[in-house]
Amino acid sequence: MNKLFTCITITLALTACNATVKTNTTSITNIPETSVETPKNIIMVVADGMGPAYTTAYRYFKDDKTTAHIEETVFDRHLLGLSSTYPARESGYITDSAAGATALSAGIKTYNGAIAVDVNKKPVNTVLQWAKKQGKKTGVVVTSQVNHATPAAYITHNESRENYNAIADSYLDNGINTDLILGGGWKYFIREDRNLVSEYIQADFQYIDNYQAISQLAPQKPVLGLFAEVGLPAALDDSNPHRLSMMTKAATSHLANDNGFFLLVEASQVDWAGHGNDIASAMAEMDDLAKTMEYLELYVKNNPDTLVVLTADHSTGGLTVAANGKYIWQPALLHQIKKSPKTLAKQLAKSDLTQNEISTILNFEVSKLEAQQLQQAKYKGFEQREKYRNLSKTAQAKMKEPSVEKFMHKAVKRLIDSRTNTGWTSGGHTGIDVPIYALGKQHDIFSGQLDNTDIAEKLFSLLGKKQ
Amino acid sequence: MNKLFTCITITLALTACNATVKTNTTSITNIPETSVETPKNIIMVVADGMGPAYTTAYRYFKDDKTTAHIEETVFDRHLLGLSSTYPARESGYITDSAAGATALSAGIKTYNGAIAVDVNKKPVNTVLQWAKKQGKKTGVVVTSQVNHATPAAYITHNESRENYNAIADSYLDNGINTDLILGGGWKYFIREDRNLVSEYIQADFQYIDNYQAISQLAPQKPVLGLFAEVGLPAALDDSNPHRLSMMTKAATSHLANDNGFFLLVEASQVDWAGHGNDIASAMAEMDDLAKTMEYLELYVKNNPDTLVVLTADHSTGGLTVAANGKYIWQPALLHQIKKSPKTLAKQLAKSDLTQNEISTILNFEVSKLEAQQLQQAKYKGFEQREKYRNLSKTAQAKMKEPSVEKFMHKAVKRLIDSRTNTGWTSGGHTGIDVPIYALGKQHDIFSGQLDNTDIAEKLFSLLGKKQ
Repeated sequence: MNKLFTCITITLALTACNATVKTNTTSITNIPETSVETPKNIIMVVADGMGPAYTTAYRYFKDDKTTAHIEETVFDRHLLGLSSTYPARESGYITDSAAGATALSAGIKTYNGAIAVDVNKKPVNTVLQWAKKQGKKTGVVVTSQVNHATPAAYITHNESRENYNAIADSYLDNGINTDLILGGGWKYFIREDRNLVSEYIQADFQYIDNYQAISQLAPQKPVLGLFAEVGLPAALDDSNPHRLSMMTKAATSHLANDNGFFLLVEASQVDWAGHGNDIASAMAEMDDLAKTMEYLELYVKNNPDTLVVLTADHSTGGLTVAANGKYIWQPALLHQIKKSPKTLAKQLAKSDLTQNEISTILNFEVSKLEAQQLQQAKYKGFEQREKYRNLSKTAQAKMKEPSVEKFMHKAVKRLIDSRTNTGWTSGGHTGIDVPIYALGKQHDIFSGQLDNTDIAEKLFSLLGKKQ
Repeated sequence: MNKLFTCITITLALTACNATVKTNTTSITNIPETSVETPKNIIMVVADGMGPAYTTAYRYFKDDKTTAHIEETVFDRHLLGLSSTYPARESGYITDSAAGATALSAGIKTYNGAIAVDVNKKPVNTVLQWAKKQGKKTGVVVTSQVNHATPAAYITHNESRENYNAIADSYLDNGINTDLILGGGWKYFIREDRNLVSEYIQADFQYIDNYQAISQLAPQKPVLGLFAEVGLPAALDDSNPHRLSMMTKAATSHLANDNGFFLLVEASQVDWAGHGNDIASAMAEMDDLAKTMEYLELYVKNNPDTLVVLTADHSTGGLTVAANGKYIWQPALLHQIKKSPKTLAKQLAKSDLTQNEISTILNFEVSKLEAQQLQQAKYKGFEQREKYRNLSKTAQAKMKEPSVEKFMHKAVKRLIDSRTNTGWTSGGHTGIDVPIYALGKQHDIFSGQLDNTDIAEKLFSLLGKKQ
């Protein structure tokens, strides 16, 4: 055999063909979407709000400055393309998380607020529901409440994401289709009018309400795990800052079975950090997501019959890596921040705000000017609160009492933005295309410029559903 | 032959092999970068400052609202991945256009300001210079002055981008390596101390100084075409708003030869629009770039032995598609704007600023409130100018006279931002990864997450240079 042929691998590319080809080699690439070879397990990871500024920022946040080069992140290893995120025409070009999740779960464009219903409010099939019908086990793992827009758009249908109780009820009432549910939400599942947890237990689910119990799950038996009143604590405030990766690990282990599984994993709070224009929390949530992806890399290595897809539903906050005309971004400071700015603000609101006290609470040295800025914020908060307290009861009834903590919270975030030179343009979403990552079986079909609906369509196709 | 085999195309994937494989089939995909099959022609397009918000924004800017779907852009058809843009460690994470261009032209990280020199200010080989050594013709087509950072970093070497005259001089003095140069820059080429244009003519170049002459170029004879004092007029103000595509068309035609060519095309002014936080100009520059790419699509179709790569050196302005907590972006208005905000501001500064006059000048109806905002800007401009004029000569000498037009310019841009709900965070650059597009021969090797230096390395590799 001559040299040329020793270095040629013959691969098969299926073209315009519905035939199923089984193969044991991993060298087959570029199988077009008409192929129906289904990965046994599909793990869809949605990083809510994670536009490309977040993955870029995370690379520099993780950079080890003692090395000559900037280290590659787990995201860098698996980037395949970008996805557009616009909703149905009636909602303009900027999606909310409900329409975004419906596009990803059901492959259709709908109005902002819609949970797996079309523009006529008619329920539409989701990939999780379809996978369940194909005999796969299903699960959702989120850091928000489990009836929040993204998980809801995979599990159920509702004309409005705001109908939290109805959405939680429907998880049971429409017929349970999810074998594992991990996240937050006691508020919606243990209510005065209905105790859904009891009903889940009656339906032969095991219920857990603390992270420790995750390691002791009974195999086979379906799981409802709720760990917080609403969403889980922010990564920076949680007893386990890598709670998403911990839950994902448990989920993959618990759902594993001969027919495979479909698992939705949502890094829900990247979005919340974005809405709050909070770069410290954003990087901590990204770090939990990165740990999750690193675990899934290992999982795919050990279970090559698994496909993992990661994308975002939209970007949040108009985050920019550098701002104010300055060519710097200085994320090193963020590693010193050990609690969320919200929690730090609470501590600051109770303190005397001397330069030393502030430095101790924030865990980094603040300048005299920075201390003054925080003192002014506290003063302004008090001033506004006093103004409110001097109003008539009637006038008070029309508004909320101003919170000193809120003034401090904003000031702490602006201090961190100023130190890191981080920019934001919005408390809401923006329309920028979001990155797509995939690894494992059939990952190549998610390459290039896609629309969010294409992602669901490709998953449906892999699951053998004819469009 | 059974059905299975009739629908299988056998393709060859080269693995870990330095052998050259010639083939006439277009079905070979994923040829790794170790392959050295050189496209005959390589066209590198750099859209200065074009982060992913620009390509996203352009899609919605071009959306035909009378159709059910949002139309695909030329960019969408060729997206392959994202590129990181950080400069050498000593310049932090945010690059300028010089270090960015050097990474793209020479494959090395350097300090901000460097023109194809390394961190020790030592000249480094560029892909244009290498292509010339391989016997290819070379060209640059830009909308900036032709001695601006990006083209300079392909053609020459200098320790600072600010040395405009020295850079222009070096194009000749270092030995001419570029057969076609089109863009702006009389200021640097026809100087009191040196007339480079005369010297180019002596060196047997044909010199042109107007767009009309582009269509009458003598074949074979090298070309210097300078069409403006510094940069070309903004797309919105130019006699030909698609001057980049016009020049690119002429360049591909002029450079075509049996040995092939290397052409750098720079959409220089996307960056300038970004620095100015000017969404109207940004979309007009993107439109010229889109026309250029549409022409190059056709060129590749007719000349399949051509590779076209498009990327950006960085993103500019911290542009966000939506802002201020509102889930809307309304680019339709931008189509009514027929002159750059700078030019409109000049007209407004001369007018009485009645609501009607403003509406006529801007070519869209302004509200009473918007008219008042522009009137206030004019008033503020006058006030500042008067203040300046009342200063002593010594005090005046320390600052520039405030310009009413500048106040108007800012106000017009803020009005357009408010109408479209566009966000910006900086007058400088940001660190977000930028999209990579490629088409034509060997385009696949530019897929996934790359670094800007990888792009040069891959081009060097295609041009047969051993690293």
